[in-house]
Amino acid sequence: MSKERKGWTSTAVVDSNPYSRLMALKRMGIVKDYEKIREKTVAVVGIGGVGSVVAEMLTRCAVGKLILFDYDKVELANMNRLFYQPHQSGLSKVEAARDTLIHINPDVIIETHNYNITTMENFNNFVDRIRHGSLTGGKVDLVLSCVDNFEARMTVNTACNEENQVWMESGCVPPLVVASNIDEKTLKREGVCAASLPTTMAVVAGFLVQNTLKYLLNFGEVSMYVGYNALQDFFPRQEMKPNDQCDDRFCRQRQKEYKAKKAAEAKVEVAVETKEEEIVHEDNEWGIELVDESKVEESKTTVGNGLEYAYELPKENEVEIENDRNGKHRLDEL
Amino acid sequence: MSKERKGWTSTAVVDSNPYSRLMALKRMGIVKDYEKIREKTVAVVGIGGVGSVVAEMLTRCAVGKLILFDYDKVELANMNRLFYQPHQSGLSKVEAARDTLIHINPDVIIETHNYNITTMENFNNFVDRIRHGSLTGGKVDLVLSCVDNFEARMTVNTACNEENQVWMESGCVPPLVVASNIDEKTLKREGVCAASLPTTMAVVAGFLVQNTLKYLLNFGEVSMYVGYNALQDFFPRQEMKPNDQCDDRFCRQRQKEYKAKKAAEAKVEVAVETKEEEIVHEDNEWGIELVDESKVEESKTTVGNGLEYAYELPKENEVEIENDRNGKHRLDEL
Repeated sequence: MSKERKGWTSTAVVDSNPYSRLMALKRMGIVKDYEKIREKTVAVVGIGGVGSVVAEMLTRCAVGKLILFDYDKVELANMNRLFYQPHQSGLSKVEAARDTLIHINPDVIIETHNYNITTMENFNNFVDRIRHGSLTGGKVDLVLSCVDNFEARMTVNTACNEENQVWMESGCVPPLVVASNIDEKTLKREGVCAASLPTTMAVVAGFLVQNTLKYLLNFGEVSMYVGYNALQDFFPRQEMKPNDQCDDRFCRQRQKEYKAKKAAEAKVEVAVETKEEEIVHEDNEWGIELVDESKVEESKTTVGNGLEYAYELPKENEVEIENDRNGKHRLDEL
Repeated sequence: MSKERKGWTSTAVVDSNPYSRLMALKRMGIVKDYEKIREKTVAVVGIGGVGSVVAEMLTRCAVGKLILFDYDKVELANMNRLFYQPHQSGLSKVEAARDTLIHINPDVIIETHNYNITTMENFNNFVDRIRHGSLTGGKVDLVLSCVDNFEARMTVNTACNEENQVWMESGCVPPLVVASNIDEKTLKREGVCAASLPTTMAVVAGFLVQNTLKYLLNFGEVSMYVGYNALQDFFPRQEMKPNDQCDDRFCRQRQKEYKAKKAAEAKVEVAVETKEEEIVHEDNEWGIELVDESKVEESKTTVGNGLEYAYELPKENEVEIENDRNGKHRLDEL
């Protein structure tokens, strides 16, 4: 794995080619030009239980550049999740992550920021990196939010709204359930996702990076929302759209763009479906709304000659999920 | 993380306790006695893209003992998945895995076997370790199959049938689709799961170890079958039962036990549902059958005071999946 990236010139499925199994995605007709991943820059905010695995996955997938943001230190209590090792205790998470990642794939350029993005000064630095962080000094290709608290989520949301930057969110259940109607600053830090397993963290990271690859390399179907109930193994899927009750200037702009996009889609699909989308929830402090996604389109994905899928997506497969986001219990009651 | 395992005496959510986030599962009422994981032994067959992550997850979950089986060496071409690092190239997978795992959690006892279980002599060794491999010299608690070929799968199946040993299977799409109707020995090794990503591998490993934890520690619902279509993000679930066309002596015994168990269940649930299960596929060479699981029971899981789930399982949520297992295409056509 030299800096010359000679692996990319070869699609040979040989054991000495670190890119052979990735390039096979191209040979099989799943991804048209996998090597384009080398030009992409992804910012990962929060390098904890999900973010560290996300960074490792993208490194092994040979992304061009990673920009990592975190201000925590590695602790022994993090050893119940993948990635960090006990000998890294006490190091900053971004530095520990970089040390591991450059050994896994030295082709990936890794930039680290050891600060809290929610302070005013760091917010400006964060926005600057979104705007100028790519390999060519331009906008990054995607921001992934892997943080463990509401304030940081809103900060990512604000920055990406301002910059018209596409971003994807992830989270584990306690914040997703109980972050409504409480001031998150009153929560003790240890109460945030107090219990966690490497299993759920890896599944969430896997979904997020899978979606990232599909988005960056334009294959498969990028999901708007995938949930995972680990106790019962079911997976709700939903669409998302901007909250049209939000008065923020940049959010207003995004709402307008969303409406224009939907109108354009409606023109094309007019013979198929003209029904207005039904709003499930009026609004919430996430600045987003969840809408029913009861119709599922036919698969647009094609694969190479001689390949077929084990499963085909059924036409009417959406589960009706009960989506009560008005968490009645506080985290510190747990 | 000393050999004295002092973490288990404390449920404190403090950063210096490597078991704090695991013990929090107990405090939250999700798992009754998480510390029982220390008494469990799990055998993992195949320490590749899925098996290595499975072994790391179980190590971080603090399982008592792991028994690892593989006969491959680490290659640069494996770097497109989690776990192994380039500096381990050339080492046997089981040795490389052990070297990493003992640094992550020295409390876990790790036994390694660097051989192919499908030869006659090694098959006998494999069966012996299933029978006597536990921490007390008895049967292991679970066998996890993470192999990449049909012959090894059948070997695990045969051994576990003979020993009446519970085991769980995992696999990536190409073997699952195309291993029917062809002699697997004719396949070039490089054709087996030629393309792979750390994302799908981690998701499959996450599902498998989540199921393992639920089975070993008796919480949540253990799934019989969970599929993951990465291109479209849907997740078929099914039940499985023994193939009643199989003449193997041990399989016959398992079929009888399965019928007795189903009859006992039917008595209890007679008021709820008496319909015979509909068989989707008559038989196949996997020695198993897939049956429709169109009714989903109410959640039996309860959680601690002050905790609620983000999602509740809907009552009628099963997707109808098209389950064509008669793969018409050969791997070497890809």
